[in-house]
Amino acid sequence: MNDKLSYIIKNIAPVDYSIVQETQKLLDNLTKPLNSLGRLEEICKKIAAITQIVAPKITKKFIFVLAADHGITEENVSAYPQEVTSQMILNFLNQTAAINVFARHTGSEIFIVDMGVKSDFSKINNPFFIDKKINYGTKNFLKEPAMSKKEAEQAILAGIEIIEDILFKYPKKDAETFLVSIGDMGIGNTTSASAITKIIIKDIETEKIVGRGSGIDDVRLKNKIKVIDEIMKKYNFDVNDGLDILSKVGGYEIAAAVGIILACAKYKIPVVLDGFIITSAALIAKCLNCKCVEYLLAGHLSKEPGHKVQLDFLGLKPILNLDMGLGEGTGACLAMSIIELSCKILYEMATFDTAGVSRKI
Amino acid sequence: MNDKLSYIIKNIAPVDYSIVQETQKLLDNLTKPLNSLGRLEEICKKIAAITQIVAPKITKKFIFVLAADHGITEENVSAYPQEVTSQMILNFLNQTAAINVFARHTGSEIFIVDMGVKSDFSKINNPFFIDKKINYGTKNFLKEPAMSKKEAEQAILAGIEIIEDILFKYPKKDAETFLVSIGDMGIGNTTSASAITKIIIKDIETEKIVGRGSGIDDVRLKNKIKVIDEIMKKYNFDVNDGLDILSKVGGYEIAAAVGIILACAKYKIPVVLDGFIITSAALIAKCLNCKCVEYLLAGHLSKEPGHKVQLDFLGLKPILNLDMGLGEGTGACLAMSIIELSCKILYEMATFDTAGVSRKI
Repeated sequence: MNDKLSYIIKNIAPVDYSIVQETQKLLDNLTKPLNSLGRLEEICKKIAAITQIVAPKITKKFIFVLAADHGITEENVSAYPQEVTSQMILNFLNQTAAINVFARHTGSEIFIVDMGVKSDFSKINNPFFIDKKINYGTKNFLKEPAMSKKEAEQAILAGIEIIEDILFKYPKKDAETFLVSIGDMGIGNTTSASAITKIIIKDIETEKIVGRGSGIDDVRLKNKIKVIDEIMKKYNFDVNDGLDILSKVGGYEIAAAVGIILACAKYKIPVVLDGFIITSAALIAKCLNCKCVEYLLAGHLSKEPGHKVQLDFLGLKPILNLDMGLGEGTGACLAMSIIELSCKILYEMATFDTAGVSRKI
Repeated sequence: MNDKLSYIIKNIAPVDYSIVQETQKLLDNLTKPLNSLGRLEEICKKIAAITQIVAPKITKKFIFVLAADHGITEENVSAYPQEVTSQMILNFLNQTAAINVFARHTGSEIFIVDMGVKSDFSKINNPFFIDKKINYGTKNFLKEPAMSKKEAEQAILAGIEIIEDILFKYPKKDAETFLVSIGDMGIGNTTSASAITKIIIKDIETEKIVGRGSGIDDVRLKNKIKVIDEIMKKYNFDVNDGLDILSKVGGYEIAAAVGIILACAKYKIPVVLDGFIITSAALIAKCLNCKCVEYLLAGHLSKEPGHKVQLDFLGLKPILNLDMGLGEGTGACLAMSIIELSCKILYEMATFDTAGVSRKI
């Protein structure tokens, strides 16, 4: 394995929860009934533990929309033609896709990353566009591995670089922290995510994790299930070898998401997962170092049926459940705003003493 | 009944859903898979129907925190002393209570309304304070009716005036609409809300709707259940006479919330309910004119157990479920931001044609 990658994976510390006692004390002095903010209190305590800051202040909310194309689209598994991935890049840069509306609404900063789209975007000059292209789409993994192991490592490293770049560009002060959320764009990528999910969460029926993605009909759903069942026969998978699984059935955007998760865990930055695709990256990251799961929050529960299976496997409870299934980071982005609010209560509310409010009888 | 009140109640039109066809067409042309924004799509269609605007633009988000004291606190049913209601008014005006943090975070405008707090606030001069005091707290409804029918009408009218005032102060243009959410502050008011719920949703065990409010112990929980069971014997209630129920066991803040709901229904403004207290006002409003339920959205599901019972009775599905139970309008306020976003997608996203994105195969 690449030295840098191996260094990052080995240097992820478990989250130290002892600081949460201090955060809890702070919460219990605020002018509100004990525990009356429910999950918001849980969430800010988790952010405190991850960042090791008693009352963390979220100063930046980043969304990285990772885009790539998939050779598996040859198998007639998608509702939209492959060129939509490229077309959507322009829609994102034009600020008119769903995730742009979500990002503006929540005050989040959005970056579009070409990890392996089939078109050439090398001439795009836009401060919110990041060119990390590994290749022009993966190969059809029903016929051959989606990518080489070297490519898989390169794509993970690209994700790590993205996080190291923002840490370099935006220095944080004392109690400040960032939130990172990850979104995806890639026609065919629910098939790749289904494969990863099936391989890692072994004893689950294929039908329970293969969904309709962006709205496929019954014929394509059948194809998709068939693809998953066939690759289980075609390849030998080692559930402890995330890199191997990733290279055989993954995507470049999924690999980059793995890198972002690993780097955030290494640098103690909370990561908000989006839906089925990005959570499949979390499954791979867990194979590489299970401690990184402690740095994750589940932004929402997608309507893609396999997402609940994934989140249960990771032990994560979604913040939102709005029956969404768009991807792009939309669910994660909306959840980031709630996470930010959960931290604001720690330093914007009065205590019983400062406000002169009587305590419980 | 007071003429004005009777006029408002009689002039609530049913929501005309025919406009939703146009909103649906718009949604289906946006660059996203069909129905992939799930509940956000449902929500913006509901706002379209209520306001009769195909793509409504929410220009103002109001929160009215209605405060009042309750004579029933004499029965040892609350976790906090009665003076907390008054103390919290100052905390709200100082911008340091939970709802202030939520309002700032979501860009909502907050007004604090004294409907019947036990302290004198007549000298407060603050543009965000509204003085509608009916009396210095209700009477102990275990011994006598909480208020006179005249007071109940006055308090409802105060709620109506609040809405008519904002409509006068902030004229709306073509496609613009407001969102209104209601919050509560009043030590003892979950007992009042439990009584209303028990009376209106008849065949329900008292234990299923009486909760721990701001965190009462077992002794007080027993007292609270006893109070509810005793008033069911003491009074004769007519479930079709909302004004009678309100005057016997209600609160001034609950009555004002009824007025806000009625006025919003009359003037076609969507109302976002908060938790158990404000939803008890919706039960009363439903008695007065069942059509007003169509103008309501359930902001969140409170952890107070009776709230689910109320929402099921009203046929409303909560937007958020974060195990919160603070009141003040916190749940409604957070939901308003999601409702606002649901409308933004209608006019901020590109269509397949304008963005040059290929449609479904």
